[in-house]
Amino acid sequence: MDLKSKIRIINDFPKPGISFKDITTLLQDGEAYKYAIDTMTETLKNEKVDLVVGPEARGFLFGVPVAYALSAGFVPVRKPGKLPCDTISMEYALEYGVDSLEIHKDAIKKGQRVAIVDDLLATGGTIEAVAKLVEELGGEVVSINFAIELKDLKGREKLQGYNIHSLIEYDI
Amino acid sequence: MDLKSKIRIINDFPKPGISFKDITTLLQDGEAYKYAIDTMTETLKNEKVDLVVGPEARGFLFGVPVAYALSAGFVPVRKPGKLPCDTISMEYALEYGVDSLEIHKDAIKKGQRVAIVDDLLATGGTIEAVAKLVEELGGEVVSINFAIELKDLKGREKLQGYNIHSLIEYDI
Repeated sequence: MDLKSKIRIINDFPKPGISFKDITTLLQDGEAYKYAIDTMTETLKNEKVDLVVGPEARGFLFGVPVAYALSAGFVPVRKPGKLPCDTISMEYALEYGVDSLEIHKDAIKKGQRVAIVDDLLATGGTIEAVAKLVEELGGEVVSINFAIELKDLKGREKLQGYNIHSLIEYDI
Repeated sequence: MDLKSKIRIINDFPKPGISFKDITTLLQDGEAYKYAIDTMTETLKNEKVDLVVGPEARGFLFGVPVAYALSAGFVPVRKPGKLPCDTISMEYALEYGVDSLEIHKDAIKKGQRVAIVDDLLATGGTIEAVAKLVEELGGEVVSINFAIELKDLKGREKLQGYNIHSLIEYDI
């Protein structure tokens, strides 16, 4: 199936010059969505994944059904203050300034095999922070899966050493 | 399976006096999570659901795998400014003030059969707004499914006329 044809391009969102890849047109097509999740899951089925980890909110849209399809658990990584129990946090760089992400301290046990899933690989900063959170808790990142990869932003260079998969590629 | 035993209670979060129902302990248990999603999906399998609709971010955690299990599409309802294409919006009351939610105008076609899924039924204000958004676009709300229901807050009274299901009940 040509998954790229299911993505809607919206120019100048969220600001001028950005060509936004809108995944909602893929999500609302049940057949295409199922195909996307099954294809992502296929790369993981021999990895003995214990947990899928994904950042809010769009990371949930792909990470959660992959966890379900693998009968694995799902661990949300959230913006500060959203998780109710004890957390650790990690900062990551934005275009201007920094932001941070949190994970529950008891979400991952030492040695658990973790797949990280997100919607988009751009510069890789967010997912680098997610991987550090997983590793700080003792998890092993066995794979990082994206729905979309913007190749010219060279996110793979920031994530060297990890096993990276993406379903749909754009130059930018 | 006793799903209630998988929920962690956190007192005084996000503010004093609130007994917060933490679903992350359910999510990270792959077997329990799969059981929860399969039980939720069971109530929908004869409803010919075209689309599952869920509000961000915790609504995604249950709505998305239910959509996957039904081979239905998923439509996200989001906070203002997050959806990139033309939207309609609906206000709903908070304890103090109002907030609003948005849905893409072209997300639902007239006559499509919609299941709304969220993590928690409390007073029902959020989901009443989601149902109005679905209906304004011409969708038919065939079911509303929650992981958790806080019965003493009487959300069902606000959602009269809808077909409501919840997996786990608390008095408050």
